[in-house]
Amino acid sequence: MVAELATLRDQIDEVDKALLNLLAKRLNLVAQVGEVKSQHGLPIYVPEREVSMLASRRKEAEQLGVPPDLIEDVLRRIMRESYTSENDKGFKTLKPEMGAVVIVGGHGKMGQLFSKLFKLSGYQVRVLEQHDWQQAETILSGAGLVVVSVPIHLTEQVIHRLPKLPEECILVDLASVKNPPLQAMLAVHNGPVLGLHPMFGPDVGSLAKQVIAYCDGRQPEAYQWLLEQLQVWGAKLQAISAVEHDKNMAFIQALRHFATFTYGLNLSQENVQLEQLLALSSPIYRLELAMIGRLFAQDAELYGDIIMSSEDNLALIKRYYTCFGNALSLLEKGDKAEFIAEFNQVKAWFGDYATHFLNESRTLLRQANDSRR
Amino acid sequence: MVAELATLRDQIDEVDKALLNLLAKRLNLVAQVGEVKSQHGLPIYVPEREVSMLASRRKEAEQLGVPPDLIEDVLRRIMRESYTSENDKGFKTLKPEMGAVVIVGGHGKMGQLFSKLFKLSGYQVRVLEQHDWQQAETILSGAGLVVVSVPIHLTEQVIHRLPKLPEECILVDLASVKNPPLQAMLAVHNGPVLGLHPMFGPDVGSLAKQVIAYCDGRQPEAYQWLLEQLQVWGAKLQAISAVEHDKNMAFIQALRHFATFTYGLNLSQENVQLEQLLALSSPIYRLELAMIGRLFAQDAELYGDIIMSSEDNLALIKRYYTCFGNALSLLEKGDKAEFIAEFNQVKAWFGDYATHFLNESRTLLRQANDSRR
Repeated sequence: MVAELATLRDQIDEVDKALLNLLAKRLNLVAQVGEVKSQHGLPIYVPEREVSMLASRRKEAEQLGVPPDLIEDVLRRIMRESYTSENDKGFKTLKPEMGAVVIVGGHGKMGQLFSKLFKLSGYQVRVLEQHDWQQAETILSGAGLVVVSVPIHLTEQVIHRLPKLPEECILVDLASVKNPPLQAMLAVHNGPVLGLHPMFGPDVGSLAKQVIAYCDGRQPEAYQWLLEQLQVWGAKLQAISAVEHDKNMAFIQALRHFATFTYGLNLSQENVQLEQLLALSSPIYRLELAMIGRLFAQDAELYGDIIMSSEDNLALIKRYYTCFGNALSLLEKGDKAEFIAEFNQVKAWFGDYATHFLNESRTLLRQANDSRR
Repeated sequence: MVAELATLRDQIDEVDKALLNLLAKRLNLVAQVGEVKSQHGLPIYVPEREVSMLASRRKEAEQLGVPPDLIEDVLRRIMRESYTSENDKGFKTLKPEMGAVVIVGGHGKMGQLFSKLFKLSGYQVRVLEQHDWQQAETILSGAGLVVVSVPIHLTEQVIHRLPKLPEECILVDLASVKNPPLQAMLAVHNGPVLGLHPMFGPDVGSLAKQVIAYCDGRQPEAYQWLLEQLQVWGAKLQAISAVEHDKNMAFIQALRHFATFTYGLNLSQENVQLEQLLALSSPIYRLELAMIGRLFAQDAELYGDIIMSSEDNLALIKRYYTCFGNALSLLEKGDKAEFIAEFNQVKAWFGDYATHFLNESRTLLRQANDSRR
């Protein structure tokens, strides 16, 4: 029996080694694609190519008796690596005749990411950091694009500190609230102004499929090339007004982060045994715990700033608190029927999204389970 | 340029087809492993084999210039399929001389899963459903194992309704609270008693790496084979006392589900534009929204039962509400310094787990991004 199993396992290992060689070959081909794309300024992420390629492989998989989801998942994972490796080949310079790109806060994590991408695209990049303000005029002289990438509570202040910029210079910020910085930029600069909010952290391997929200400020025709450049890097753009953006972020960031904060705070006050909790966790609860714990590996000030960035956030959090209190009184009364009725109202409100989310998270939870050791 | 790109893409497609053939070959080999394992009663998940195999492939990957994480992720995904396909080959019967397995509630989703697994392992399986109580004596006659798999609010009641079981029959329940059902089983039956809580939903493809918590009731020597059978199916067992189990579940289930419920309730009351929220979402917020929405695709009563299953749950939820209120008053005072201080206390309490969770969730969020369309 042991011999029989050993032979089969050797054969499996041989297959896996062949697989490894194919991966090496594929990465090599993709690097060549990257070079062609970079020469011609083509975006690294082409949804149509992805869709048609996956459809063909799924069909062939079915004929071979391989589950189509298996080949799709494997190829999607390989493609992620491809996007990252296409990155390294550089990108086409869409605005070659432009002056330098100056990144204010260019040594911060997000600043470094954008600095790298602009350099990979052939732009001259300069950094203006905290201690550089005395040389600000020199650093900014002849700038074609200024990107403000500083902590959110400093954004407006830094914008107001900028010396007069060349008339045609594009002024951009990357803060995660958009209206106040946009107003500040419009006030200090008469040329083109654009608000960007990258909806991802600085640790992404590539911008492929990552969302960047953008809010038009002034003279959009002057920065169309920049929006295209972001797309060449792989990003998906989402246009929105600054006010609408901030309204959505109150939910996406302020309320969510605060709820996560209080949840972690409560766990620590209850002093639960994390180890035991994890040993008992289903994949979904492990993920939920991870989503809470991960907040606290990050910067307290950043989260404080985001949550306290507006009165609207506070009002929203208060309404949630009231909603929680009302639901709690149902529990105190032991009113299961009313709990079920409210549950079903929310179900109706979510509509098709509820099932959609269930399926989407099921896929992800299976992936989480794959990685269990 | 188009021709150049087309040639490269054709070559990539050829590589992907070769990959597909390897997958087919591998699944075939794995099916043969499944047969050997099934004959000899070996567990489908063998952690040591997985660890050593992945370590070898990672090393070889590095030599080939392939990112080691890529081959590991791809192999883990393939192995999931392998566990499922090993499943289909059946499992060894560890207790061949035993009477029938009777699953009370065997037509429910979890009941069906266990029914399938017992059948695949060569046991005779009978089902006792709601409308079968008049024939209960017949169905249960000569039973070697009775598994109670009914909605949580009916568990104790159903246990009390059972006719007298054969002295040597093993009585087991699968409810997600453990102490009250265990006490009920000990009261109605003098033979071996065991509480199980499968920490997963009935939609898992296989039990590989899934956790089952178990609480000893009486005569553990009589059901050791059953615990081994669960391991042959791939499950990871976690021993815990019923009281400790329920204390942990207050966090894992009651508080978490209730917080998720109130979050969804609040979103519906605020009537946010889900579509716009999703368009703007980072992978992490999309995942968080999905974790909320998925709750509402499920059974209101099940969640009501879990949350309202004990006074301790209510007390815990109230303490969380108080904690939230205290944190909210920090915001109202605009006390950012105190927010940061508390944040850092929680960070210290999470210790190494915070960074660990950040890395773990980063991997998963990248996978979530891979699947974006």
